[in-house]
Amino acid sequence: MRIGFIGLGAMGLPMVKNVAAAGFEVMAYDAVPGRADSIPGLTPVTTVGEAVAGADIIITMLPNTGNVEAVLFGSDGVIGSMSPDAVVVDMSSISPIATRKFAERIRAAGGRYLDAPVSGGVSGAESGKLSIMVGGEIETLDFVRPVLQSIGKAITLVGGVGAGQGAKLCNQVVVACNIAAVCEGFALASALDLDLETVRTVLAQGAAQSWMGDNLGPKMISGDDSAGFRIALQVKDLGLALEAAKSESVPLPATSVVNSLYLEAMAHGEAANGNQSLHRVYERLTNRTIAQEEQ
Amino acid sequence: MRIGFIGLGAMGLPMVKNVAAAGFEVMAYDAVPGRADSIPGLTPVTTVGEAVAGADIIITMLPNTGNVEAVLFGSDGVIGSMSPDAVVVDMSSISPIATRKFAERIRAAGGRYLDAPVSGGVSGAESGKLSIMVGGEIETLDFVRPVLQSIGKAITLVGGVGAGQGAKLCNQVVVACNIAAVCEGFALASALDLDLETVRTVLAQGAAQSWMGDNLGPKMISGDDSAGFRIALQVKDLGLALEAAKSESVPLPATSVVNSLYLEAMAHGEAANGNQSLHRVYERLTNRTIAQEEQ
Repeated sequence: MRIGFIGLGAMGLPMVKNVAAAGFEVMAYDAVPGRADSIPGLTPVTTVGEAVAGADIIITMLPNTGNVEAVLFGSDGVIGSMSPDAVVVDMSSISPIATRKFAERIRAAGGRYLDAPVSGGVSGAESGKLSIMVGGEIETLDFVRPVLQSIGKAITLVGGVGAGQGAKLCNQVVVACNIAAVCEGFALASALDLDLETVRTVLAQGAAQSWMGDNLGPKMISGDDSAGFRIALQVKDLGLALEAAKSESVPLPATSVVNSLYLEAMAHGEAANGNQSLHRVYERLTNRTIAQEEQ
Repeated sequence: MRIGFIGLGAMGLPMVKNVAAAGFEVMAYDAVPGRADSIPGLTPVTTVGEAVAGADIIITMLPNTGNVEAVLFGSDGVIGSMSPDAVVVDMSSISPIATRKFAERIRAAGGRYLDAPVSGGVSGAESGKLSIMVGGEIETLDFVRPVLQSIGKAITLVGGVGAGQGAKLCNQVVVACNIAAVCEGFALASALDLDLETVRTVLAQGAAQSWMGDNLGPKMISGDDSAGFRIALQVKDLGLALEAAKSESVPLPATSVVNSLYLEAMAHGEAANGNQSLHRVYERLTNRTIAQEEQ
């Protein structure tokens, strides 16, 4: 089975390493040359056309909807060089509405299409334990499943084309609100002069427990801003979620507020920091750092 | 060791059962007569004075700050009948600010005071596995610990008097936001015609996981409104959290919005339903139920 893999960023690079390590023949492309040069078992190529020619499965892992559209349908795009019966698997997190249109155009050219965004961040990509949310036909998923199994642990067919992207947006809505929940709990705890580590431990034992509290809570307390998942990418995903909500006339009041908090973080230079950095929005809102400095 | 237990409601009754079952001598009082009549191993009494006279430890488990104030300091109040060196353990969830004042008055009368609110709901109270957040002196906690161990599993001294109530409010902030997170994820999933159980399962496997998603998510999907923890009590707790936030000038934007959503639930008759009923706020906001009925 021959794989064309397009997009070798923070997520794509560890993912393609795992695909190559599983023994698939891989042609790997990124707009930035050289990224795949030192990876054993794959062939770096310098054009989308080379990555795609003769491939049974074409995987895209790109930052946003516009990137995917350009790679699929732009000049030297996938659609110009792909085998007529190839499967395009878009693992980027992009608009579910645009996804349905992309799938239609690929199908019109004879190909098949799956949307298969992932959850689990860079660490999940490195360990090959991503959670993969798939939209499309079960037969198509069964065809690409061996490849996806080299990338992810839980592979779930959520529904038809676009359903994978839809589920990813629901995931991001919950994730972002859960992060804000931890931030607000900590902001109140700080204001009440409670020990944050004690409060974190108590909350983790009961109904306030969350993956985000368990994993980002300690980083908020220690001031570790390292990015598993960047603020800027969450802002992109929340934008897609609110766009989808708007198109369906679904008010999401909490998510809308949390999105504004993320924008505050962007405005204060936190774009490249991890999501746990959202807690500093509350430090700025409450001005406690400045108050302490002035003491 | 003799215990005076005041407040035999949905939480207090299973708690006092466990205290009595552990072999402590218990005098039990509630404003509603008869509630403790059929419970083995305890003595029902008809006044606060009888519950408190000669007690080493006085436990209160009451709905709100005003109730605690009235029971402690009103006519036939605790302070009029308690032994001079008794310990008052208030396990209600009430204002941390009022708590500090109550403790001061009890100390001025010679007694000791702990605030020890709980998390874990009616099921935790029945199984004796509540999480107990304690504010006060470690020596006082050590004195009452054998009794608390009959009620709860995790007993944490968070800080001085009021710190238990403070931690409980932080807990409720996180809990309420996590519930809203699940509701918003489901609202978007419904609008995108995704299967809710599939989305729930996918989200529970990754970074969107939370105790609330695991425990209330299935009830939202099945339409089970049964109350482990009532909407009205969450509204009370969020009111206390926002009051504390106001007094410390801490903006809690997400919690404030979630509080408004809970008020919408109150306005539509959900007060006695469980917290999972918050999901119906979104059905009303998006009018999907009505839209479906009209089809």
